[in-house]
Amino acid sequence: MSSLHAVIMAGGSGTRFWPASRQRRPKQFLPLANGKPLIEATLERLHGLVAPEHVWVATNRQQAKALAKLLPNLRRERLILEPEARDTAPCIALAAATIASTDPGATMIVLPADHVIEPIDAFQTMLRAGAALAADGRTLVTFGIPPTHPATGFGYVECGAPIANAALPAFTATRFREKPDRATAEQFLAAGNFLWNSGIFVWRIDALRAAMDAASPPLAASTTAMLAAIQKQEKAATTRAFLQAPAKSIDFAVMEKAPAVAVVRANVRWDDVGSFPALAGIGSADPHGNVAVLADGATHLTLDGKRNIVYATGDRTVATFGVHDLVIVAVDDAVLVCPREQAADLKRLVEHVRAAGRADLL
Amino acid sequence: MSSLHAVIMAGGSGTRFWPASRQRRPKQFLPLANGKPLIEATLERLHGLVAPEHVWVATNRQQAKALAKLLPNLRRERLILEPEARDTAPCIALAAATIASTDPGATMIVLPADHVIEPIDAFQTMLRAGAALAADGRTLVTFGIPPTHPATGFGYVECGAPIANAALPAFTATRFREKPDRATAEQFLAAGNFLWNSGIFVWRIDALRAAMDAASPPLAASTTAMLAAIQKQEKAATTRAFLQAPAKSIDFAVMEKAPAVAVVRANVRWDDVGSFPALAGIGSADPHGNVAVLADGATHLTLDGKRNIVYATGDRTVATFGVHDLVIVAVDDAVLVCPREQAADLKRLVEHVRAAGRADLL
Repeated sequence: MSSLHAVIMAGGSGTRFWPASRQRRPKQFLPLANGKPLIEATLERLHGLVAPEHVWVATNRQQAKALAKLLPNLRRERLILEPEARDTAPCIALAAATIASTDPGATMIVLPADHVIEPIDAFQTMLRAGAALAADGRTLVTFGIPPTHPATGFGYVECGAPIANAALPAFTATRFREKPDRATAEQFLAAGNFLWNSGIFVWRIDALRAAMDAASPPLAASTTAMLAAIQKQEKAATTRAFLQAPAKSIDFAVMEKAPAVAVVRANVRWDDVGSFPALAGIGSADPHGNVAVLADGATHLTLDGKRNIVYATGDRTVATFGVHDLVIVAVDDAVLVCPREQAADLKRLVEHVRAAGRADLL
Repeated sequence: MSSLHAVIMAGGSGTRFWPASRQRRPKQFLPLANGKPLIEATLERLHGLVAPEHVWVATNRQQAKALAKLLPNLRRERLILEPEARDTAPCIALAAATIASTDPGATMIVLPADHVIEPIDAFQTMLRAGAALAADGRTLVTFGIPPTHPATGFGYVECGAPIANAALPAFTATRFREKPDRATAEQFLAAGNFLWNSGIFVWRIDALRAAMDAASPPLAASTTAMLAAIQKQEKAATTRAFLQAPAKSIDFAVMEKAPAVAVVRANVRWDDVGSFPALAGIGSADPHGNVAVLADGATHLTLDGKRNIVYATGDRTVATFGVHDLVIVAVDDAVLVCPREQAADLKRLVEHVRAAGRADLL
């Protein structure tokens, strides 16, 4: 039977959680999983499903040191270093080549480092169902979340014909859609056969490579070259081959064109926690709708405050008095105050910070 | 000629600047004087007017250590320790007795530690004019600030007959009024002969003691007993005598009933900086009305923010994005966010902090 590996993609940077997140300390480092860093929770979700020596973390040089420190149990040789941030397709190709260099028949789970997913047993059930579908050596499997509202911040997968005999409801994926506008999202929700694209995949590496051959010959060629270079332990050649991979998402480069893609309907609570307002969905609110995500001893005191989102770390107290619908972030060297409705637009502020000559804060 | 002493009253606690101010680090410690602690600026304003060995600071045991650290040039024997916080009359009586024990003919300036007053030369001109009026050994002198608006947060002095030949416009003070309600404050402003009570005084100690004899025999007796105890270096007896002084303000205990009180109309920019919104009056605003009071390396970045008041200390940045009319305070262990209009009511929040079992933050 094909052995199961997991690759956690932890290379994202992202400024949507500034000033809590920084270039060298992006979202997956934040204690958004019940006070635990998201990536730590992601690793824990794999316990009992994937053998520790088969768990890989793909990241970049900038974050590698902090990641190794955060995850002392992760073996150093299981860190896959992306030579450059080039979207998910090259990252997945490098991970596939790395695993294939010693285990070419492996089945590979790919999952983002920075999502909130509960509960663990449903998550593992979902992955097992996906792995079973992928066992035919042909099918690429993705996981879809039943949408609860017409979200414009997620991608969608359209479900076609149901797949018989799957352990969970599963369908042929007929279309991948990037983040839609509001009207389109409402159509998807009304249609009933669209699921949120969780960004989690499972496939046999040989199936992935075959799909690359069909969907993106340059990506396939890059993967083959990386595999050869890794087998010869030629780092420079590996890097060269990586840089020849098209800088595209795996959805766009492969999934949309692959001959056999299945989507498993996942019965998990899932959130990609895209920005501070999303904390309202993962934290528990007080009777006035205030949500506080606190770590490392931080506390929150509120009087006459409503619907505020507070994120604080370290030995500090955030007091909110008579304010409402604000996002308040307090970390060691920075404080942010902005309206909830404006927090999704934090990129503008980050650009302003850069323009103000304060790249040291990014 | 009578020698000039100055007593800075630095015993106030106050929670109107929480969490910047704490019980052991009240308002006069805050860097509200162009980045300098208010009490430091108060001391500096006396340079060249009062000999350093004649400058006294009255405070309490809780703050003495921090004060001595903040003011290394202040001689330890010039710290007057109030055995208990009992309003201004006992404090002034203790200071008068202390000075009189070695210099009974002294002229004594009394001034709060925590006001913002500019410029220094006008301030010293005002005090010299007051000292000249007090030289008759009979007149108690206070200083009034021409009101610019019907403030309800200040006390007022009513001016009677002008005093001839004073170096600055001066009047017989006919009435002291505590903080008035809005309508009364408007009447005062319209009447034209009311000044804000600056809380600054100058008098000869013998004149003060004579006024106490007439206005408050218990205060006079306490002062006499303190003087005798200090001369005999009997600390316990000094404390006992102090505790017998009525716990009243000097305005109420003496000034309102003294036979000869003059008020000098002061030509200074004065603010008692009673709460965070007052920072708008002492800091300089950006084109959008944002005012930041920053110390010890703190910085402020703002985008689409209007009329916010930011107070920050230490190596941190406060970023305001799309918010308006807020007070934002960021210090090492605490952050406060509240509307400007609610900041004057901070006492309620402080009570809530105490009730929440967080006296450690006070």
